[in-house]
Amino acid sequence: MAQASQATIGDSEFDRDTAVTRRADGVYDIDLSAGWTIINAVNGGYLLAVLGRALADHLPHPDPFTVSAHYLTASQPGPAVVRTQTVRTGRTLSTGQASLFQLDEQGNEVERIRVLASYGDLDALPDDVRTTAQPPAIPSIDQCFGPDDAPAPVPGSSAIADRLMLKLDPATLGWALGAPSGKGEMRAWFGLKDGRDADPFSLLLAVDALPPTAFELGLSGWVPTVELTVHVRCRPAPGPLRVAITTRNLAGGFLEEDAEVWDSSDRLVAQSRQLARARL
Amino acid sequence: MAQASQATIGDSEFDRDTAVTRRADGVYDIDLSAGWTIINAVNGGYLLAVLGRALADHLPHPDPFTVSAHYLTASQPGPAVVRTQTVRTGRTLSTGQASLFQLDEQGNEVERIRVLASYGDLDALPDDVRTTAQPPAIPSIDQCFGPDDAPAPVPGSSAIADRLMLKLDPATLGWALGAPSGKGEMRAWFGLKDGRDADPFSLLLAVDALPPTAFELGLSGWVPTVELTVHVRCRPAPGPLRVAITTRNLAGGFLEEDAEVWDSSDRLVAQSRQLARARL
Repeated sequence: MAQASQATIGDSEFDRDTAVTRRADGVYDIDLSAGWTIINAVNGGYLLAVLGRALADHLPHPDPFTVSAHYLTASQPGPAVVRTQTVRTGRTLSTGQASLFQLDEQGNEVERIRVLASYGDLDALPDDVRTTAQPPAIPSIDQCFGPDDAPAPVPGSSAIADRLMLKLDPATLGWALGAPSGKGEMRAWFGLKDGRDADPFSLLLAVDALPPTAFELGLSGWVPTVELTVHVRCRPAPGPLRVAITTRNLAGGFLEEDAEVWDSSDRLVAQSRQLARARL
Repeated sequence: MAQASQATIGDSEFDRDTAVTRRADGVYDIDLSAGWTIINAVNGGYLLAVLGRALADHLPHPDPFTVSAHYLTASQPGPAVVRTQTVRTGRTLSTGQASLFQLDEQGNEVERIRVLASYGDLDALPDDVRTTAQPPAIPSIDQCFGPDDAPAPVPGSSAIADRLMLKLDPATLGWALGAPSGKGEMRAWFGLKDGRDADPFSLLLAVDALPPTAFELGLSGWVPTVELTVHVRCRPAPGPLRVAITTRNLAGGFLEEDAEVWDSSDRLVAQSRQLARARL
C-alpha cells in the first residue's frame, strides 16, 4: 500500500479520471475510465463525480450541496458526453441539470444518467454544528478488512478495488464468509488508495462505493440503483472517512440505502439515500 | 370534524385541487389552490402532488416510485403551467421530468420547481416485506393534538390546517408551548380531513405537511426546502397514516428532514428526505 508520494486533491488518478473537457457551453467530453468498474459496470458514484464536476464548471457556485441522480441505462467505459443546463442562479445557491450520454452500437446517443443538483459554496457556510447523529461504531482501520486481506478475491471486487482504501467492519462482513448477518448494515473506512484526501466530489464516490447492504440481508445478486441523492454538508477534513450504510425497508423488490459519511474530525460531511432494485 | 359523507380517492378536495388539465402533449394547466397554504406559502408537498399527477398522465406507468424535487422560487396560489418530458421508458420503470411555471408581475414565466421522477406500477410489485424499521411509537389519535385542540391557533397553522387531519404526538409539541425538546423529531397522525383515504399522491403531501423539526430544535423561523426526494414503496391501506420526521444534522445553516410514513396495516409506505435551509 505504501506510495512513493502521496497524491493530492487536483493531482490524482481520481481527478484525472473525472476531469471533463469543455467542448462548448454546456457540453463536456470525458473518457469514462475502466478503472472504476465493479465487475463490468461503471461505479455509480464515480459517474456522479463526473457529472458533479461538469456542473461545478457550468454553475457559478463551486460545491455540490444536493445532487439527485436517476440512473437510466448502464454506462460503459469509454467516451461519453455530459450536457449541462443552468436551471436557476441565486446568491447562495444555484441549480443545474446534467445528463451523461454514450453512443450505442448503432451510433445512437443513449442517455445514461440524468441529474438535478443545487450548488453552493461550502466555505461560505456558518460554523454552527448541532449534529445529534453519532459517528458509526467501527473498529480501528487495522481491525477492519479489505480486498487485500482476503485469501481469495472478495466476491464483487473489481478494478475499483485497486483504487480504493476500503476496510470493512468485520461485523458487516458476514456475507463474504457465507454467513450474512441479516441486518441491513455496511460500515467501512474509506479513502483513495493513492492517499488523495477527500473533497466534495470524492464524497459523491464514497456514498456508493461499499458492497450493497443487500449482501448482509442474504441477497447475492446485483442491486442496480434507480435513484441516488447525496447531500454534501461540509468540506471533509484530511484523513480517512468512515461510511455507514443502512437499509431498513427491503420490500416489494426494492430497498433504500442510507449512507452517512464522517470525516476524521467527527463531522457528518455527507448523507445520501438511494432507491435500488433487489433481484430476489 | 364530522363529515356529512366521507370523500373518496378521485372525488375529494385534494383530487380536485391537484387535478391538471392537459392543454397539449406535455403541457398541463392548473390553478394552484389557496387552500393548501401555510402562512402565504403554497405547501411543497401539495405542489409535489400536482407535479406527480402531471407525470402520471404523461408517463406509461401510473405510480411515483421515486420523485426528486428541487425548489427554485416560491409558488403563489393561482394559475400555473406544468411541462412534462419523458426521459426514458422501460418495462418496469419509466423516468420523467416536470417543471412548474408561473408568471411574474411583468408577465415573464418563472420556474418554481423542477422534478425528476421514476414511475412504476405499485400493484405489480411482489408481496415480499422484509422491513426491519419499526413503526413510530406514538400515542393513540385521541391522545394527540391538532389545531382544533389549541386554545388559540397553533403558530404556523394556516389554510392547509382546515384540510388536514393532523394530530401531533405531545412528546414533539414542546415548541408550541414555548419549550422545544431540543430533539429533531416530529410525529403525527395524518389524514385528509374530509376522510379521503391515502394514495401515492397524498403520500407526496404527507411527507411535507408536519411542522418543521427545526421548531423542536428551538428555531422558530421559516425552513424553506431546497430539495425533497420521496420514495413511495407501497399503496397505502385505508385509514390514518403515521408520519415520523427526524433531523440528525443541523449544521452550517442547513438541515435534513427524514420522513417515514406508515399505514394502518403497519407497512412503511413512503420514505423521504429533504435538505432545507435553517434561518438561525
